[in-house]
Amino acid sequence: MRGKATPRTTVRRVPGRGAHDPESIDALIDEALICHLGFTEDSVPYVIPTIHARLGDTIYFHGSPASRALRRSGGAEVCLTVTLLDGLVLARSAFHHSMNYRSVMVLGRAREVTDAEEKLCALRAIVNHVCPGRWDEARRPNLKEFTKTLVVALPLEEASLKTRSGPPVDEDQDLARDVWAGVLPLEMVARPPVPDDLMMTDTHVPDYLHWTRPAERLSDLAD
Amino acid sequence: MRGKATPRTTVRRVPGRGAHDPESIDALIDEALICHLGFTEDSVPYVIPTIHARLGDTIYFHGSPASRALRRSGGAEVCLTVTLLDGLVLARSAFHHSMNYRSVMVLGRAREVTDAEEKLCALRAIVNHVCPGRWDEARRPNLKEFTKTLVVALPLEEASLKTRSGPPVDEDQDLARDVWAGVLPLEMVARPPVPDDLMMTDTHVPDYLHWTRPAERLSDLAD
Repeated sequence: MRGKATPRTTVRRVPGRGAHDPESIDALIDEALICHLGFTEDSVPYVIPTIHARLGDTIYFHGSPASRALRRSGGAEVCLTVTLLDGLVLARSAFHHSMNYRSVMVLGRAREVTDAEEKLCALRAIVNHVCPGRWDEARRPNLKEFTKTLVVALPLEEASLKTRSGPPVDEDQDLARDVWAGVLPLEMVARPPVPDDLMMTDTHVPDYLHWTRPAERLSDLAD
Repeated sequence: MRGKATPRTTVRRVPGRGAHDPESIDALIDEALICHLGFTEDSVPYVIPTIHARLGDTIYFHGSPASRALRRSGGAEVCLTVTLLDGLVLARSAFHHSMNYRSVMVLGRAREVTDAEEKLCALRAIVNHVCPGRWDEARRPNLKEFTKTLVVALPLEEASLKTRSGPPVDEDQDLARDVWAGVLPLEMVARPPVPDDLMMTDTHVPDYLHWTRPAERLSDLAD
């Protein structure tokens, strides 16, 4: 059942920064463009960046069947972490410097998606996650491409959210120090699209290229 | 010796996207504000976001001595991955969609930093990595704070860089399709600083709050 902490996902260090409600977790997973996937091979941990998409209580990622990460992930314990950086927190003391961020950690056993219908839905979700509606415009995978793509599913059963927001928290005796303190907000933005040189010049520029921030992009996704 | 591929860091899938030269690896580590640290506990991989700094051929990260990640990292095999997302790559076919990115993966055995001088240098590097010069303005750690901070070092001996850049690569037979193709560049930017309510109003606003992109910030770091 979702929404509960497990011994592995209990946020121990600063409990007030942790949460397990599915709504907050889903929203962060949907907002992030990439995640970091951790897996173990010969007792060595590996962490690779990858793109993902969520459908209900399942998170999907994909890649080449030749990918070590993907091959290892099917059936194995993995950790998928999604992090968005929101700002630098500048305190009056070096010790209390921090960052504002939101991060979700998902633990679980991944499985290779072998059902063709589920696999196609996952691929559509991954393409549309980045550019809502793109799946209906691009050429869909042919059988060869479909076979050459490995899709892995991870249930969202064991997940935790950790966040920090707001101003710095300084020691009382430091408050009068003459040093700037506060937050420098950070944000991922899109720059003007760069058309492929080989493209026909009168091609329609799709609306999803005009997003300026993930939050606005998300409202499109909800349609 | 740095700059060589090992069996663990050879980029196998798309060899043209891989590199091992220390200059490129160092530049990416320096540009990134956070990284993802992978470690293993009871055969389960964990991935957590953390901030870092590089000094020469060593990468440092820090946290509370109570942190599970930090406690586990000292003396253990870890994987530290740094990823910067540069753009969305929109191809004419769903299959050839991609992202432009730069990512460094560092493998190795981490060690807790116990030498006080090295620990202080690492903490200074971590603070200055995010805001160049900040260490000289903020109050430095007192003995209690210094003791309450665990610093871990990871040698940069075994590291690989993986990148994708440039336009989409489509199948020839898809080039004439009437669908927008190209790159949507993405960039992390800083918004106007938000001063702490408790700060004195005439406090000097430091130059490092005016950065607009990591590349410009980096030139400051080189001073």
